[in-house]
Amino acid sequence: MTNVTLCADTATVELTFTSGAKAAFPYIWLADNDPAGFHPQTQERITDLTAIPLDITVTTAEITDSNLALTWSDDRQASTFDLSWLEAHIPGQRAADPARTGFHHWRKDLGATGIPRVNANAILTSDETLTDWLKQTQIYGYSIVEGLADNTEAGMDVARRIGFLRQTNFGVTFEVQSKPNPNNLAYTPIALPLHTDLTNQELPPGFQFLHCLANEAQGGGSLFCDGYAIAEDLRQNDPEAFELLSTVSVPFRFHDEDTDIRNRKRVINLNEDGQVIEVCFNAHLADIFDLEPALMTRFYRAYRRFMQMTRSDDYLVTLKLKGGEMVVFDNRRVMHGRNAFDPQTGFRHLHGCYVDRGEFESRLRVLARPAKTQAAA
Amino acid sequence: MTNVTLCADTATVELTFTSGAKAAFPYIWLADNDPAGFHPQTQERITDLTAIPLDITVTTAEITDSNLALTWSDDRQASTFDLSWLEAHIPGQRAADPARTGFHHWRKDLGATGIPRVNANAILTSDETLTDWLKQTQIYGYSIVEGLADNTEAGMDVARRIGFLRQTNFGVTFEVQSKPNPNNLAYTPIALPLHTDLTNQELPPGFQFLHCLANEAQGGGSLFCDGYAIAEDLRQNDPEAFELLSTVSVPFRFHDEDTDIRNRKRVINLNEDGQVIEVCFNAHLADIFDLEPALMTRFYRAYRRFMQMTRSDDYLVTLKLKGGEMVVFDNRRVMHGRNAFDPQTGFRHLHGCYVDRGEFESRLRVLARPAKTQAAA
Repeated sequence: MTNVTLCADTATVELTFTSGAKAAFPYIWLADNDPAGFHPQTQERITDLTAIPLDITVTTAEITDSNLALTWSDDRQASTFDLSWLEAHIPGQRAADPARTGFHHWRKDLGATGIPRVNANAILTSDETLTDWLKQTQIYGYSIVEGLADNTEAGMDVARRIGFLRQTNFGVTFEVQSKPNPNNLAYTPIALPLHTDLTNQELPPGFQFLHCLANEAQGGGSLFCDGYAIAEDLRQNDPEAFELLSTVSVPFRFHDEDTDIRNRKRVINLNEDGQVIEVCFNAHLADIFDLEPALMTRFYRAYRRFMQMTRSDDYLVTLKLKGGEMVVFDNRRVMHGRNAFDPQTGFRHLHGCYVDRGEFESRLRVLARPAKTQAAA
Repeated sequence: MTNVTLCADTATVELTFTSGAKAAFPYIWLADNDPAGFHPQTQERITDLTAIPLDITVTTAEITDSNLALTWSDDRQASTFDLSWLEAHIPGQRAADPARTGFHHWRKDLGATGIPRVNANAILTSDETLTDWLKQTQIYGYSIVEGLADNTEAGMDVARRIGFLRQTNFGVTFEVQSKPNPNNLAYTPIALPLHTDLTNQELPPGFQFLHCLANEAQGGGSLFCDGYAIAEDLRQNDPEAFELLSTVSVPFRFHDEDTDIRNRKRVINLNEDGQVIEVCFNAHLADIFDLEPALMTRFYRAYRRFMQMTRSDDYLVTLKLKGGEMVVFDNRRVMHGRNAFDPQTGFRHLHGCYVDRGEFESRLRVLARPAKTQAAA
């Protein structure tokens, strides 16, 4: 039986649920979250918080069946809360989120064979396979889709199973091949050390999709490392470097004939709980650092240390993509690169696009809905 | 005459420019920014920082004409820096950026007549007008474009003068009109208090374009306020509320049949210099707040105070858009709303889209290039 107490001194309703969980719900929070205060169709919040007195108090609280019934110190209608809803929204605890799968940090021992592989047709035809693939891709930060048709739409269709494609100054999709007048090093045949893409954007693109249509040139192998693993090892082994890279931002820039996009970014980005949620590293797009001289010297040490880790074999997984394969990776976590290739020896052509984390996570949440109530959720 | 000194103890080259400006350039920074270390075509950085010893030193420094010539402690090639380039990149100073116009904070005294107005055709045909319009729109956070043709493409064509449109779960463009099965309160005829759009997105859209095709219904007036002005007044008058709103994030969420997009955001967002750079406020999209009970109560006080300011006449500018007018505003600064309207009394139809700050600022930078050297910049 759920137990309820009114605590006037903290202005909270204290509940002890049948599960044993205890929680304190502030009066103002309860008034703001009255289930009647949400639009029936859009589910958006329509309560007017300014019409709720800041010192509102609960006058009576009663447990009836699976509900908590409250009356108020002003003349508003009594409120009824579902107890299981309250237990799922205990103040101070993060609500459950089907889009959070956790992360498996990996290093070189993962190997090319450890990368999750999924068949393209199964993703296109089965929501269950789609769900599993998205979860694996989030846990590892990357995966390989195989069995793609030999046309530039095949990989993009798989990406669109998640959501719309993220447009950038390079277009909605892009071709990675050697070009005569490149505006980006990716469009040359030279080696690209490990990096994340478009660090000059305020929001660098989330998941990247590179569909290999041909890889017949000598060289051109693909390199990957887990930026989260590197960041965590840096936190352990060089706390000063970790601190600098996660608090000091530096400018990044891309510019060509029609574009000049600049933003400041931190190389390592943490959430409020201190968890690494983004790595932003692209030496090619680093603009002229503008820190105070003393900080500059300290920052260069930290930044160079991080860069050395990205060059270390300890983190490196290499593979040579084959025609019909598509690599998918979280561009804000997994760094990618390639070995130089010789365009005289054969054709190398990747077709790429991005889907942002917002669409990726949204799809996981919608797929997790109970089938019958999906429309009503 | 520029004066140069080598300071071995701080590992910097100290320069006193003919302008009188003094600056210290760390050795490692100079080695990393050697002009030879950038790709001739893409202008991307190709220097390998890991190949530069962290303790590299400058052995000789000489001023010749308008250059600084350096030799190094290892066997690398001598370097030559342009002195004016060095003066434009003094460590500890932000480089000049044509996309930063500054901001004019406004309150109700701006009035509807104080809003910058520009003719659509002039924007489409003149780079000079385009530049002026973008600057005014950034300084005030909003403007009105007039003289638009009576079709849904007319406003979008003006937006595309800046860059590509930002797609969201509502599409690349959207219709604001009363709809039978709304998934968003904007698509009902009810009043919308001042808010910013899509606070549930990791990156809420930047500039919003609302082209008024018809506004014949009774009611439906547009409301605007400058979120930066409100935030700055809050900083002055209620520092505790400002501190909470600029450091504590809360969850936002939008969900409908095919979408469930959630992100945590702060209501007031500051850059590293403490300047307000974003306001993120949408009571309809606020998810269930999940803070610890004691912090929750304090946060609610601050949040409600901010909300009350958005309801105050002190900040409010109202106008009734006419057919052929388009309002343009920075959705991460200027809050917008509308009065309720009666769809029985006439048609109200706005056609909208977004262009992100990245594209907006990029366009300002490209327009600021000297005409002759634009391609080489």
